[in-house]
Amino acid sequence: VATEFDLIARYFTRALPGAVTGVEAGVVLGVGDDAALVNPRAGHELAITTDLLVAGTHFFPDTSPADLGWKTLAVNVSDIAAMGASPRWATLGLALPAHIAADEAWLSAFADGFFACADAYDIELVGGDTTRGPLAFSVTLIGEAPAGRAVRRSGAQVGDAIWVSGTPGRAALGLAHLQGRIALTEPDLTQCLAALHRPQPRLALGLALREFATAAIDISDGLLADLGHILARSGCGAALTVPDIAVLPALTFAQSLADASLVQACSLSGGDDYELLFTTPPDCRPTCEGLPLTRLGTITAQAGLIVRDAHGARITPTRFGYDHFG
Amino acid sequence: VATEFDLIARYFTRALPGAVTGVEAGVVLGVGDDAALVNPRAGHELAITTDLLVAGTHFFPDTSPADLGWKTLAVNVSDIAAMGASPRWATLGLALPAHIAADEAWLSAFADGFFACADAYDIELVGGDTTRGPLAFSVTLIGEAPAGRAVRRSGAQVGDAIWVSGTPGRAALGLAHLQGRIALTEPDLTQCLAALHRPQPRLALGLALREFATAAIDISDGLLADLGHILARSGCGAALTVPDIAVLPALTFAQSLADASLVQACSLSGGDDYELLFTTPPDCRPTCEGLPLTRLGTITAQAGLIVRDAHGARITPTRFGYDHFG
Repeated sequence: VATEFDLIARYFTRALPGAVTGVEAGVVLGVGDDAALVNPRAGHELAITTDLLVAGTHFFPDTSPADLGWKTLAVNVSDIAAMGASPRWATLGLALPAHIAADEAWLSAFADGFFACADAYDIELVGGDTTRGPLAFSVTLIGEAPAGRAVRRSGAQVGDAIWVSGTPGRAALGLAHLQGRIALTEPDLTQCLAALHRPQPRLALGLALREFATAAIDISDGLLADLGHILARSGCGAALTVPDIAVLPALTFAQSLADASLVQACSLSGGDDYELLFTTPPDCRPTCEGLPLTRLGTITAQAGLIVRDAHGARITPTRFGYDHFG
Repeated sequence: VATEFDLIARYFTRALPGAVTGVEAGVVLGVGDDAALVNPRAGHELAITTDLLVAGTHFFPDTSPADLGWKTLAVNVSDIAAMGASPRWATLGLALPAHIAADEAWLSAFADGFFACADAYDIELVGGDTTRGPLAFSVTLIGEAPAGRAVRRSGAQVGDAIWVSGTPGRAALGLAHLQGRIALTEPDLTQCLAALHRPQPRLALGLALREFATAAIDISDGLLADLGHILARSGCGAALTVPDIAVLPALTFAQSLADASLVQACSLSGGDDYELLFTTPPDCRPTCEGLPLTRLGTITAQAGLIVRDAHGARITPTRFGYDHFG
């Protein structure tokens, strides 16, 4: 069995092409000391986020290790994107049961997935900790945004338009398929499983948000639940119309009534999507190349979240989002 | 049962007395958004470290939650101190089994211990993640050091003196007592259990290291193992003499031969001490108010770690340090 130090050296230490000295921004000292050293960019604030993913709670223990490696970093990239910041430096904590610590193919695949995401979003892994324990991953990701330009949850104004990127609900539908609650067919199956296992954080949109968004959040708990966080922090309410939401999933399978209900529930309340939900001034027409942006409704002065059907009647979603302790 | 958001809000969100705006260094936005925002100090590098503590691997599940809260942050403070940096901002990931998530007294005590350490070392908790799972804590701590002044493991030079702070071995002796391998009596028992449960990171010494140390590390894996990390990174060896080390524990109990052997093993190879091990130019006489500093030996050109007894004969420690996968 490899020692702790072997594991870090073999799988999670890479040469730092961007290592810098002096005043240049970047990594000064990477993995292998008591702490990493980095030079932050002048005139920028740091955006700091952390996530802890636990086997059995966040993923099935038999999920592909490459997918796990990707996702454990990607969910943090999504948080940094939702602030309008650029991800820069990550740390990785790994708790590994003995049989995985001894499984070179697993470790190598996990590292490949992790670094594929790191490379896709220009992130350096600067530190880590490997220990024995029930399978779990912790990532802290540090990003940078020009001082004063980051986008918060608290900035929504009455009358603002509410927007969402992509097609929320796909990850939850993929999970429902794996759980036997719906039978997806191609090409939806591939698309929904990809959303579940290889989420694509909306970084390009996140950086563009600095230009036009008044508030933003990424959809990790579910669209309605995460909109609720914006409303709570901004001190306002929202009115949504279901038809605007219901058209979001571009799923082509023939829907039974039960399926249609599940699709709507996944769109409104499914977690794990990592799309961005944001508000803009009323007349703004935001765009992001290659990514559909859909207007869902309007910020209101009256507190609360009102969802109406096509006839204007209020409906009450059965489930607002995911809570680990609910 | 409290929801995830209740837990964060109730136990781990505090008003930020130091929240700043504009160009002042400090916390701009704390817990409660997709990411925290902080303003780093101009002309400084960031030091970044992370640790993952898992029940059953790093601590007994029945350890006092206040002690766990303190220690989970303190072990990271020690890493930042070993770089000669000042700790600033922390994130906390908590995986909690259902019975602990529902135990308000436990959560409150854990938070009290965590914030006691944060206050002692002037750290702001800026972000976190709470999830269900086997009991585990992940902390990432970000510190600052004037650019180019941080102390690394790699700077030891042939002829340098090797120093250690305090009395390494106390935490391991405390653990040995809890495991029934030695019977400590007062006042040693209190001192050793305090070292195990409430380690005091050597931050004042760490900041002073910038003035006189060529290399430094904190003792988390054991004195010899951690010295080995300095030697590996600095490309040199070391010669130590046991009498210099053996006098370190100021333990007053009457030692049997077996006890004396255990005390020596704990001093040389016991983990979890969080004292600082460092090297200085040969003629340097480092001091740190209130903290004994002991010279252990000398850095040598010949690779390897040579330990000699009082008669000059080489001895081979039976165990070099702790490894989670060894």
